[in-house]
Amino acid sequence: MTAEMFPKEKTIDLRKKHIGPSCKVFFSHDPIKIVRAKGQYMYDENGVRYLDCINNVAHVGHSHPMVVKAGAEQMELLNTNSRFLHDNLVQYAQRLQATLPEKLSVCYFVNSGSEANDLALRLAWEYTGHKDVITLDNAYHGHVSSLINISPYKFHQLANAEQSKSVHVALSPDLYRGNYRQDHPDPATAYADDVNNLIQKAHEKGHKVGAFIAESLQSCGGQVIPPAGYFQKVAQHVHQAGGLFIADEVQVGFGRVGTHFWAFQLQGEDFVPDIVTMGKPIGNGHPMSCVVTTREVAEAFKNSGMEYFNTFGGNPVSCAIGLAVLDVIEKEDLQGNALRVGGYLMRLLEQQKEKHPLVGDIRGRGLFVGAELVRDRVKLTPATAEAQDIIYKLKEQHILLSADGPHRNVLKFKPPMCFSEEDADMVVEKIDEILTGTLNKFYYEYYSFFTDIEKALGLQMPSTVHTENGTPSPQSLWHSQI
Amino acid sequence: MTAEMFPKEKTIDLRKKHIGPSCKVFFSHDPIKIVRAKGQYMYDENGVRYLDCINNVAHVGHSHPMVVKAGAEQMELLNTNSRFLHDNLVQYAQRLQATLPEKLSVCYFVNSGSEANDLALRLAWEYTGHKDVITLDNAYHGHVSSLINISPYKFHQLANAEQSKSVHVALSPDLYRGNYRQDHPDPATAYADDVNNLIQKAHEKGHKVGAFIAESLQSCGGQVIPPAGYFQKVAQHVHQAGGLFIADEVQVGFGRVGTHFWAFQLQGEDFVPDIVTMGKPIGNGHPMSCVVTTREVAEAFKNSGMEYFNTFGGNPVSCAIGLAVLDVIEKEDLQGNALRVGGYLMRLLEQQKEKHPLVGDIRGRGLFVGAELVRDRVKLTPATAEAQDIIYKLKEQHILLSADGPHRNVLKFKPPMCFSEEDADMVVEKIDEILTGTLNKFYYEYYSFFTDIEKALGLQMPSTVHTENGTPSPQSLWHSQI
Repeated sequence: MTAEMFPKEKTIDLRKKHIGPSCKVFFSHDPIKIVRAKGQYMYDENGVRYLDCINNVAHVGHSHPMVVKAGAEQMELLNTNSRFLHDNLVQYAQRLQATLPEKLSVCYFVNSGSEANDLALRLAWEYTGHKDVITLDNAYHGHVSSLINISPYKFHQLANAEQSKSVHVALSPDLYRGNYRQDHPDPATAYADDVNNLIQKAHEKGHKVGAFIAESLQSCGGQVIPPAGYFQKVAQHVHQAGGLFIADEVQVGFGRVGTHFWAFQLQGEDFVPDIVTMGKPIGNGHPMSCVVTTREVAEAFKNSGMEYFNTFGGNPVSCAIGLAVLDVIEKEDLQGNALRVGGYLMRLLEQQKEKHPLVGDIRGRGLFVGAELVRDRVKLTPATAEAQDIIYKLKEQHILLSADGPHRNVLKFKPPMCFSEEDADMVVEKIDEILTGTLNKFYYEYYSFFTDIEKALGLQMPSTVHTENGTPSPQSLWHSQI
Repeated sequence: MTAEMFPKEKTIDLRKKHIGPSCKVFFSHDPIKIVRAKGQYMYDENGVRYLDCINNVAHVGHSHPMVVKAGAEQMELLNTNSRFLHDNLVQYAQRLQATLPEKLSVCYFVNSGSEANDLALRLAWEYTGHKDVITLDNAYHGHVSSLINISPYKFHQLANAEQSKSVHVALSPDLYRGNYRQDHPDPATAYADDVNNLIQKAHEKGHKVGAFIAESLQSCGGQVIPPAGYFQKVAQHVHQAGGLFIADEVQVGFGRVGTHFWAFQLQGEDFVPDIVTMGKPIGNGHPMSCVVTTREVAEAFKNSGMEYFNTFGGNPVSCAIGLAVLDVIEKEDLQGNALRVGGYLMRLLEQQKEKHPLVGDIRGRGLFVGAELVRDRVKLTPATAEAQDIIYKLKEQHILLSADGPHRNVLKFKPPMCFSEEDADMVVEKIDEILTGTLNKFYYEYYSFFTDIEKALGLQMPSTVHTENGTPSPQSLWHSQI
């Protein structure tokens, strides 16, 4: 397999011809062709190196030799389904279980975060006998139809969206832009009470809640870090209503948050979800995923009488790769690295916040970090076009970063876990340069007016940008549910 | 990665402890531990060789060196998502398109047959604006929630099954056991009229049909070969109602039927589905899948405004593996082999039908063959326990075969495509021995009565078996949606 077969233009033409037009490329006006990658670096067809700040899927680093070796050796031996006994499957389940609270002991292996979250819903529906689901605003849980229904991030994109009557959208527990903020005396309780209100309203309509689902830290929703204690209080309300708590760790699990292996553990040791779903990083890019739950939920699902079979799920190759990923995380202390480098990155970004009024908020845990850009630190006017401009300018400097959140104004860091302090230095230095110089140029060229109020507030940079006036819309620029 | 880490008992214990109890193993009373496989053979931890007559996923043969090499080499270079340009993706799409009618030109890459069928529904719903789906009786289309809804094979297993009001179940076009049989003057029209009746009934209730979905040949449904012309007539009715025709090739595509690359092509050149879904064999066990549709459907889906992103779908490793699978099919003329060996197997099985009254029907195309066992060739009483007995006895002879269909009485052949005439000789010889000798012994030991009527019909074998009386139920014995 050669690294490049076609000139880039031919690749683009064939893509237009044969790949669904709903499948977007990064930087659609000048997409990147990547032919190889190693660690936190990706290389294009001309050998140009890009620093990768976004691929949380390549968790232990792109093309990690230990992972490649494990996959290749197992492919050579055997790749078959889980109706045959195989040690990789049970060993992997055992290893995974050891990272989790004891009561989360039963695994189902599937192929993607979407399959995992769909199965989590099926488990909850079967265990509780209730159909309704509470989800967070701006949440993204996957692309199969059942998950589009519970993903406001997606269904808000639809012109003719009709929200399912059995889906209830709770406030995103966002302490920066949400209903209850840093200055609120008890935002955890306030946000949990909102969930409880939804439960009560559902009951009034004769509905029953089967599950509350949330990413342990919201990713596409804008790198949101829920206040500690929130999950415990939500779980209390949801359990009282006979529902289950599903923690979606697809984006944030496997040590990324630094202090813990799972992001839900940030809430405190007294919190244990009923179901945990995993995905992206689990196989370092190999299609695999997992749902873990309690014995009680698993037995109830079994008692429905329906077998669960997943053709590729838990095959020996996937499990060999999963085991190698766990080995590398341990051997290279990547969780520790996430804590150290993530902390370092946060400090650098905090300095940017002090220096540039556009940087409104820095938040994160480990190597899951968000920098929210605003044109106005009081009104929190989202600096969407500015965020996109930074992303584009970083690309020209061969740095891959993305912007997300409901306003696409949150710079989103979730690099491979081998990301270094030097890498953090490099990306923040470039962001500083852009914020200091080039962005101003961009502004003066493309936009021509300031509001008096914003000037009066002391913003040094132009702060009212109309994305309608000819600049590409954020939607078309950069999507990043990865 | 060593081939065996635990003694078999330990593997079984760990599996009980950590793997969802809904996930069944083959031969649960004495499951098989497979540690390696090559071609059409699998080997257990003691080196015992099993002839594999069932793994249609290992399409070009287990652990095919060309496929392994392609996967390993690409893993070493790069495995990332399809938001970056990559030649493997477009080259694979181009190669796949070349096997299909011209108008099926737009691909979406996903990770499993379930993801593919769910996306097919989303495409149809978006294109047509209609919600209802017509599915065939006994159909199985996948394990995510939207597909359980359209899979009678699954939802019939549920005690408290509540069929969705937007799902309509059409007659399975089964010429042996269905409503219209070999002796019917025009079963294609009769079965298509049943679909049309469902459409009319849906209309009467104010519903609109978005899609008809069917496997091109029903697999779990009992190796059913629909009469030629049936799909054309169904498509006419469905199109007239504003719906789309989805051909599910997850089990039967990629040359298995011998005369054609796709099983829907058996219906005639004048038939082209609107959407084709692919899965199992596409990556020889690697988790990948694809949905192919027309430009019109793809554009309508895009115009919904919602991006489609699939983290692992269409990654360079999956596509490298997919390309290698296509290469091997061509290089080793596996489609030709399926035609030749499948025909040979059918002839051997026809001889069994002449010899043993229990063998009621032999049907198939290429290396997709069913042998339906009945206790009574007039009443077609399903010989369920006998089928299970054969499966178990074959296992003792180190041959892996399965039984499926709504009565689990259809012996189901869908081996790796390198299956040889010698392999066919071996399995049919063993079946002959079992039918001649051992089965009789089994019968006389376990069952004690014949009905006068059945004896009068000239059946040489005991024909009334009560599966309730202590024999394992078919459900617990052998499931085989692979």
